[in-house]
Amino acid sequence: MYPLLKDIRHNPLLWLLVFVPVVFAAHKFKAEAHTLLFMLSVLAIVPLAALLSHATESVAAKTGDTVGGLLNATLGNLTELVIALAALRAGQYTLVKASVAGAIVTNTLFMLGASFLLGGLKHHMQEFNRVSARLQASLLFLATVALVIPSAVGDADQAPASAFMQQLSVGLSVLLMVAYGLGLVFSLKTHRDIFGSTEHAEGDEAPWPLGLALVTLAGVTVLVALVSEVFVESVQGAALELGMTPAFVGFIVVALVGGAAEMASAFAGARKNRLDLSVGIALGSAAQIALFVAPVLVLLSYVIGPTPMNMQFWPGAVVMILIATLTAAMVTNSGRSAWFIGALALMVYVIFAMTLYLLPPRSP
Amino acid sequence: MYPLLKDIRHNPLLWLLVFVPVVFAAHKFKAEAHTLLFMLSVLAIVPLAALLSHATESVAAKTGDTVGGLLNATLGNLTELVIALAALRAGQYTLVKASVAGAIVTNTLFMLGASFLLGGLKHHMQEFNRVSARLQASLLFLATVALVIPSAVGDADQAPASAFMQQLSVGLSVLLMVAYGLGLVFSLKTHRDIFGSTEHAEGDEAPWPLGLALVTLAGVTVLVALVSEVFVESVQGAALELGMTPAFVGFIVVALVGGAAEMASAFAGARKNRLDLSVGIALGSAAQIALFVAPVLVLLSYVIGPTPMNMQFWPGAVVMILIATLTAAMVTNSGRSAWFIGALALMVYVIFAMTLYLLPPRSP
Amino acid sequence: MYPLLKDIRHNPLLWLLVFVPVVFAAHKFKAEAHTLLFMLSVLAIVPLAALLSHATESVAAKTGDTVGGLLNATLGNLTELVIALAALRAGQYTLVKASVAGAIVTNTLFMLGASFLLGGLKHHMQEFNRVSARLQASLLFLATVALVIPSAVGDADQAPASAFMQQLSVGLSVLLMVAYGLGLVFSLKTHRDIFGSTEHAEGDEAPWPLGLALVTLAGVTVLVALVSEVFVESVQGAALELGMTPAFVGFIVVALVGGAAEMASAFAGARKNRLDLSVGIALGSAAQIALFVAPVLVLLSYVIGPTPMNMQFWPGAVVMILIATLTAAMVTNSGRSAWFIGALALMVYVIFAMTLYLLPPRSP
Repeated sequence: MYPLLKDIRHNPLLWLLVFVPVVFAAHKFKAEAHTLLFMLSVLAIVPLAALLSHATESVAAKTGDTVGGLLNATLGNLTELVIALAALRAGQYTLVKASVAGAIVTNTLFMLGASFLLGGLKHHMQEFNRVSARLQASLLFLATVALVIPSAVGDADQAPASAFMQQLSVGLSVLLMVAYGLGLVFSLKTHRDIFGSTEHAEGDEAPWPLGLALVTLAGVTVLVALVSEVFVESVQGAALELGMTPAFVGFIVVALVGGAAEMASAFAGARKNRLDLSVGIALGSAAQIALFVAPVLVLLSYVIGPTPMNMQFWPGAVVMILIATLTAAMVTNSGRSAWFIGALALMVYVIFAMTLYLLPPRSP
Repeated sequence: MYPLLKDIRHNPLLWLLVFVPVVFAAHKFKAEAHTLLFMLSVLAIVPLAALLSHATESVAAKTGDTVGGLLNATLGNLTELVIALAALRAGQYTLVKASVAGAIVTNTLFMLGASFLLGGLKHHMQEFNRVSARLQASLLFLATVALVIPSAVGDADQAPASAFMQQLSVGLSVLLMVAYGLGLVFSLKTHRDIFGSTEHAEGDEAPWPLGLALVTLAGVTVLVALVSEVFVESVQGAALELGMTPAFVGFIVVALVGGAAEMASAFAGARKNRLDLSVGIALGSAAQIALFVAPVLVLLSYVIGPTPMNMQFWPGAVVMILIATLTAAMVTNSGRSAWFIGALALMVYVIFAMTLYLLPPRSP
Repeated sequence: MYPLLKDIRHNPLLWLLVFVPVVFAAHKFKAEAHTLLFMLSVLAIVPLAALLSHATESVAAKTGDTVGGLLNATLGNLTELVIALAALRAGQYTLVKASVAGAIVTNTLFMLGASFLLGGLKHHMQEFNRVSARLQASLLFLATVALVIPSAVGDADQAPASAFMQQLSVGLSVLLMVAYGLGLVFSLKTHRDIFGSTEHAEGDEAPWPLGLALVTLAGVTVLVALVSEVFVESVQGAALELGMTPAFVGFIVVALVGGAAEMASAFAGARKNRLDLSVGIALGSAAQIALFVAPVLVLLSYVIGPTPMNMQFWPGAVVMILIATLTAAMVTNSGRSAWFIGALALMVYVIFAMTLYLLPPRSP
């Protein structure tokens, strides 16, 4: 336990762990205070996500490059997955889809953009290995195609066609997971030479011993799951009370909460002129959500959801994902970065956030 | 005749020529067996297309670089043209358009993707001259714009507006043919120095003498036309009997049949690490169909079709062509290739094929 | 006054100034002759725009790099702004939006394409500094996103939602102006080293003395404003009489008139193998209209328009701007140019012009 306690002492972010018991207590005694519960659960999820992330990396560091890479690739977005599973079990498919789309867009535009901006304010011009950025951008492109095609084709067909959409969603889910797996084989195995070595040195903290890491992984996952229940339960009510649209909450707030821990790592990397790290975390995480988390959710909806969930997203969300993917491809294309590139990606994100914030409540 | 017989003896693909008389016999005696006729005509078209392709190249090889390049550029997709003409004469405009769109998409994603994959499984990293790839990709982009604009503008206008669409289609057809011609002037004449020399060394077989090549060209074109009649007549019935949607048959099956001969050359080139050849065949063929075959069909519809055909494609087809063009630009952008790039393009193709296969039958 | 008279003597374009008094006289005595007034006002605006452009550059040249860059960046499209203000005051919002969209598309495709073509016909291969082209293309991309998102999201919502669109338009206008300002800080201040020095050496004429330049700037702006009134009043009637659609006039004719002076500079630069100049004028001007002129018009509509104007464009216009931006990014990507690249961009422009020309009159 010693390394864990030491980390908590040195990392102010982890002091937020105090909100974990507070949120459970509040939920027991003030179950109707949606806004309070929403805020407390946000404050509790952020440090738990940081712990999960450190535990995953510690296990990865102990198990060698290939297994470690695989672990990071499957558990790297465990927080987002657990939150989405809570929403899935509650049958809140609009929230599930908004949080998936929002996580892709937030990682691609906000995390990447802010990394470039923060790094660029300190360093005149930064360089990074664009091979990895290209792999992730091309995986994101594939996922975008998988989202666009059903909508483009389904629109031509006025009928509800839900059977068609459901079969297609399962097929696409399997296909995206296969593509994600092939991407891992490519980057971890057959062509690891061109990807450089910074791949999963994510974060500078010393790795924990394997036992502690595994216990933390299991225990914290359970805690995240419990807090997520409160979060999902309170988010709609809180949105109403705070005057925010559900689209804004699902897209922007949930995504920022779920990704807070990774953002801390990405921004720190950028400030230290290790932009490979920042780009890898931001785009890697976006690709993982699009090609692993989303398909897993579709397939799991057959087991734990009230009805099967399909992959047909709100057209506005599809357009945002498409633009985010294009932006990512554009800004990482040259392998060089300056502050303005980051500002530009952030501006695209602000356009999305502003539109969702102003959107009349019943729309999406 | 000797070189022809020798080729037939050495090339197992050409043994399928035996199905040419079989399909005519079957059509005479079992005119209602759609599925049988469909399959026999497929088996007969494949070797005929290979012969056509070899004859065209032999004539091209004998007539010097410029004339030869022109010949390849106009007759290189003679099979697709003849099949589409048979459908045009029968007034099956949906099939004509599906086969044009399908040929563009199949050449761009399947032929290019499989070439990269097959080449990449043998060679760790392959390079190719990207100047030619860029020219073809930019021509494809122009054709895509010509398909997108009428739909984007026509949609705003709820009325049928068929006169507008018809005038516009003729104008766009002429424009695309001019662009195609300018592309030939650019690559064969004013800037041939940057295009390298591999351009039309398509295939390794020795060229035939000019007389044999011309006779084969004429005779085989007639045979393809006759078999295409059977093919077009039987394809709808066969699709129904096989449980495939007409969209899937038009897009995927017809395109694979029409392009089989070229695919054999492209794949062989990739395995021999001559990727310039593969990229040239795949993208060159797609550009030729978009900027030469499609306009010719629109203009010929005034002469041989029951009514004039316009260039307004099914919106799903326009989106697929757009994505295929973007994918081609993306995967050829760096001038380098590895197996994963090919797998990615193939996955995009599989997404299309899966969507069309599952599509409820009456849609497109 | 001497340098002004000398310029007029040596520049045949300025001889058209004789039409300025003619248009006022005609307006007084033949107020109903729409086509005549339209043509006369076109002939009068072209030389006035050339004078404005020279005056702006003279002031810029006298005030040092940073202030001069700022001046060029805000007054460089004064003609377009004044014409649009006249249409805004008349409440002709369709014309305002068409002229804004048309100016973006015309600068991006026609001015850039014709520069590449004219330069390429004289020089086998031309090179230019692509850093500046990339900055402008990325600003255009941001503006395109700002136009696409409201439409994509607004469509999902069937209600009129005009309050939403109006708030969003103000927000987006402010955001685009901030982005434009950041782009200036980036190119004129923090990273001016990578942008080269050709930035605002636009044109070869000797700069005028500051006093003359300022007086000309003020006086000619008033003249342009007065002629624009006649132009805006007569354009609709003239379009009807000439058998042109209002969409064609707004998009193509107004844009060509407003940009004639800049085109002369851009084409001259290309012929002299100073393509940096041409690319800077074409894309810089397009970015300026999208991120400065359009937002200014939206904000000013609250002060001088009959009702507030929003940023929701006709979907066809959004698609054209999107394609123009993509084309600009594509053709400037390599930093090299040959005649075919220019021909290609022009062809995309011809597709737009042809579609708008054939469009049934009531559509947009």
